[in-house]
Amino acid sequence: MPPLVESVPNFSDGRRPEVMDAIVGAIRGPGGRVIDVQVDPAHNRSVVTFVAEIQVAEDAIVAAGRVAVDRIDLTAHEGEHPRMGAMDVVPFVPFADTPMSTCIELAHRTGARLARELRLPIYYYGEAARTPERRELERVRRKGFEELREHIGDADRIPDEGPRTIHPTAGATAVGARIPLIAYNVNLKTRDLGIAKEIAKTIRASSGGLPNVKALGFDLADRGLVQVSMNLTDYRVSNMWRVFTAIQAEAAKRGVEVVESEIVGAIPLDAAVRTIREVLIEPKFNMDQILEKKVWAGE
Amino acid sequence: MPPLVESVPNFSDGRRPEVMDAIVGAIRGPGGRVIDVQVDPAHNRSVVTFVAEIQVAEDAIVAAGRVAVDRIDLTAHEGEHPRMGAMDVVPFVPFADTPMSTCIELAHRTGARLARELRLPIYYYGEAARTPERRELERVRRKGFEELREHIGDADRIPDEGPRTIHPTAGATAVGARIPLIAYNVNLKTRDLGIAKEIAKTIRASSGGLPNVKALGFDLADRGLVQVSMNLTDYRVSNMWRVFTAIQAEAAKRGVEVVESEIVGAIPLDAAVRTIREVLIEPKFNMDQILEKKVWAGE
Repeated sequence: MPPLVESVPNFSDGRRPEVMDAIVGAIRGPGGRVIDVQVDPAHNRSVVTFVAEIQVAEDAIVAAGRVAVDRIDLTAHEGEHPRMGAMDVVPFVPFADTPMSTCIELAHRTGARLARELRLPIYYYGEAARTPERRELERVRRKGFEELREHIGDADRIPDEGPRTIHPTAGATAVGARIPLIAYNVNLKTRDLGIAKEIAKTIRASSGGLPNVKALGFDLADRGLVQVSMNLTDYRVSNMWRVFTAIQAEAAKRGVEVVESEIVGAIPLDAAVRTIREVLIEPKFNMDQILEKKVWAGE
Repeated sequence: MPPLVESVPNFSDGRRPEVMDAIVGAIRGPGGRVIDVQVDPAHNRSVVTFVAEIQVAEDAIVAAGRVAVDRIDLTAHEGEHPRMGAMDVVPFVPFADTPMSTCIELAHRTGARLARELRLPIYYYGEAARTPERRELERVRRKGFEELREHIGDADRIPDEGPRTIHPTAGATAVGARIPLIAYNVNLKTRDLGIAKEIAKTIRASSGGLPNVKALGFDLADRGLVQVSMNLTDYRVSNMWRVFTAIQAEAAKRGVEVVESEIVGAIPLDAAVRTIREVLIEPKFNMDQILEKKVWAGE
């Protein structure tokens, strides 16, 4: 089976079902396999998750972008979520053993086509960023369409691709590559919320802890426990096991026991394989050693 | 996607390519997806690995059995590997999250058809065994066709299904259900082979160690290491992590370090998931949380 990518484009409409139907249809047209559609009327925003072969993913995003440009007018858009484009953000995510480099190249090819065919200014973010300042999506998008419209000519806001003026109704689009984020929690056998907060602070990247880890302390009052709740933004750097053992050590220093941990939602097979590799000191263990993969991936 | 099973039937011919071609064709006929064929002329024996939906697997085995009965004559068969039938052994193995109970029922249905349609005496083994004495294939098959021919009437050798007399040319068939075996080694930083042998003895099931673990000590002279080499016959009971930490503790007692471990060949996704579940104290983690599974399994 040829390599696959996942893409999770965000659109600035969550109130007109016919618009999202047209977008989903545009993604399915070239063969995109839509696995989830989240419509959020409150934020007036929708998120589609689909999987496709590389060329199909490019064609699907260009087709979806065309519908978004035709049907969504940001000058009339209301909603609190920050957004700068009708098709606001397009991340490409590796699927199974598809390399990140494939997603980065795909982001750049797709961005070039969106610029050329739809006259959209394009910003590359995440692993596809052309400069370190554009790695963080929040920073690229900042205060959204209304602000970008005024400042797109500023030296630090010149698009990576396409016109140097904003699209009057469709704004601009951020196109990027990233790995999936893992939501992971560790629960501690104490009612002392201070301990969870202390440990969260010790291990989070922003205060000098483990790289690519965001952490907060929460109370699980109904269970008589506290929780260190995390987002692992790059499991290749800090995986669940590394975080688990770090928290276990910090808890032990305070005489507190780890009760259990929770992987929230899905993780990539690559994250499971890398964790086992580290836990068992088995550096050669790889995804092709998963019995089912050969059959599932049609190899 | 409907549930799948893997089956790994063994045939008593490894010298006539046309016979194996006919058998592989018979498996493919109803839709069996053949992923491996091992032909062993030295032992005059072949092993086919295929994956199929439940009903397809049953039809494929009956079709393959028909070819084996027609084309293989055990009275003229030579080869050192123990065997009692033309189609000697038929194990059904769970694929992904297919439950073992499905494989056991499939073994019983397929055995009943082989008995009825091909007049083969059938012995159920492994998890499909009807009595504890028949769990071990080696014990069911014992000294093979020539001995069974004389003793099939004995009280302890009466077939579970089908005629109580041996098939004159095709013998008898063992049909069973089992989980995949995992070959797993742990390498120790010492040249003292005695230590590997001691630890192997401590942890293997047969001398009171970990259940479902077979272990031997080997010398890796060229690397200046020794190895505890294992077969994990039921990873649901003793997984890699449990074995790894047990060996690590035994090695530490002797002042020896674990250098690395090796997972040899493939492991089921279920084994990876269960290992992570244990390592992270994450009892709810399951296969459906593997991002790729949904897409691969066509759910």
